[in-house]
Amino acid sequence: MNDRMTTISELKKIVEDFISERDWSQFHNPKNLSMALAIEASELMDIFKWNTTQECEGLMSENNTRQDATDELADILIYALAFSIRNNINISSAIEKKMIKNRKKYPTEKFKGHF
Amino acid sequence: MNDRMTTISELKKIVEDFISERDWSQFHNPKNLSMALAIEASELMDIFKWNTTQECEGLMSENNTRQDATDELADILIYALAFSIRNNINISSAIEKKMIKNRKKYPTEKFKGHF
Amino acid sequence: MNDRMTTISELKKIVEDFISERDWSQFHNPKNLSMALAIEASELMDIFKWNTTQECEGLMSENNTRQDATDELADILIYALAFSIRNNINISSAIEKKMIKNRKKYPTEKFKGHF
Amino acid sequence: MNDRMTTISELKKIVEDFISERDWSQFHNPKNLSMALAIEASELMDIFKWNTTQECEGLMSENNTRQDATDELADILIYALAFSIRNNINISSAIEKKMIKNRKKYPTEKFKGHF
Repeated sequence: MNDRMTTISELKKIVEDFISERDWSQFHNPKNLSMALAIEASELMDIFKWNTTQECEGLMSENNTRQDATDELADILIYALAFSIRNNINISSAIEKKMIKNRKKYPTEKFKGHF
Repeated sequence: MNDRMTTISELKKIVEDFISERDWSQFHNPKNLSMALAIEASELMDIFKWNTTQECEGLMSENNTRQDATDELADILIYALAFSIRNNINISSAIEKKMIKNRKKYPTEKFKGHF
Repeated sequence: MNDRMTTISELKKIVEDFISERDWSQFHNPKNLSMALAIEASELMDIFKWNTTQECEGLMSENNTRQDATDELADILIYALAFSIRNNINISSAIEKKMIKNRKKYPTEKFKGHF
Repeated sequence: MNDRMTTISELKKIVEDFISERDWSQFHNPKNLSMALAIEASELMDIFKWNTTQECEGLMSENNTRQDATDELADILIYALAFSIRNNINISSAIEKKMIKNRKKYPTEKFKGHF
């Protein structure tokens, strides 16, 4: 699969099948899923915690660490998809609308080069 | 935009343009982005922390809370996209491969209905 | 050691000695320590994520889970102490002052029984 | 209050009174408190996320940021105390025992200067 061809719905379908085959939707209420998401995000951080920001760039070039980080990112995305499945959220539209808010909140002329 | 038609690359493009217009890639090293991801995941949790698992289902039917949660989910996804942009990660392939690992780790016959 | 007799300084001393014996203060800048704290807090959550709020009370009566949670709580506190050591923060005074703010923010007559 | 004189029990008492005056123990099950802890830890991180590790040291010398970080650290500690109150955990003993495990896991001769 590649990002140019793959739609959000196709990814949702993979996650949805996995959950339903295991009858796991009973555990997937919004509260639990938000915890699972935060825990996976924390596991991604764990890879970088003791390194300088510069060293972390290097870590992403080492095959093993890069694979670990890619797996953790996938876990975050899988739970984000699970959250959107459970709560009937249109992800594309959610991102599109949030980016409009972000553009208003951070106008280019004011935030260029700093935050 | 809707999930049936939208590809990952299209979403990546929206996020990439936003970052480059603001010249923010200088802040987007892997370490910082992993922190930003964890912080956004935490903000999603914050909506649910004092409610029972059942009450949280109800919260997702209230328009305001539903919108807040949808915005927080979008923020998580935006930083996940930013992380994948910075580190040249193919998201579809990452999810596909991680789901193969998950299927091996959690075989249906052993994990059906429990975890 | 017991909580009635043990001072914060005594706990700080234990953590400080551990860090200095390993020459680890080089990694203990505020950014890294805040990440370590969040990661440990996440590991405590991990124990509870798929259980109902009620089941979680039960989990704390099972010896193994109770020990795991106690160890995770200790890890959180150890990094909180490490953060206070590195940044010269008087913990007792920090808590005392924050509780005064909390009392103002959440007056009893308005917040009794709800949040 | 200062760390040399203040015992853990004295800090527990301050937090316990605050909770009981508001009748908030009904919300303080282990699951919810673990989420609250992670959220506060995340708020501490939020102060440092876009800065280099070096800049973060500087941030802790600026009065406003230092006060913000101290308040966030206090919030983490307050919820850690609340968790120990709810679950009858002896904090001093928990830290003492965890540090014994840590000393075994990270022997000085092997971990001096690196991790």
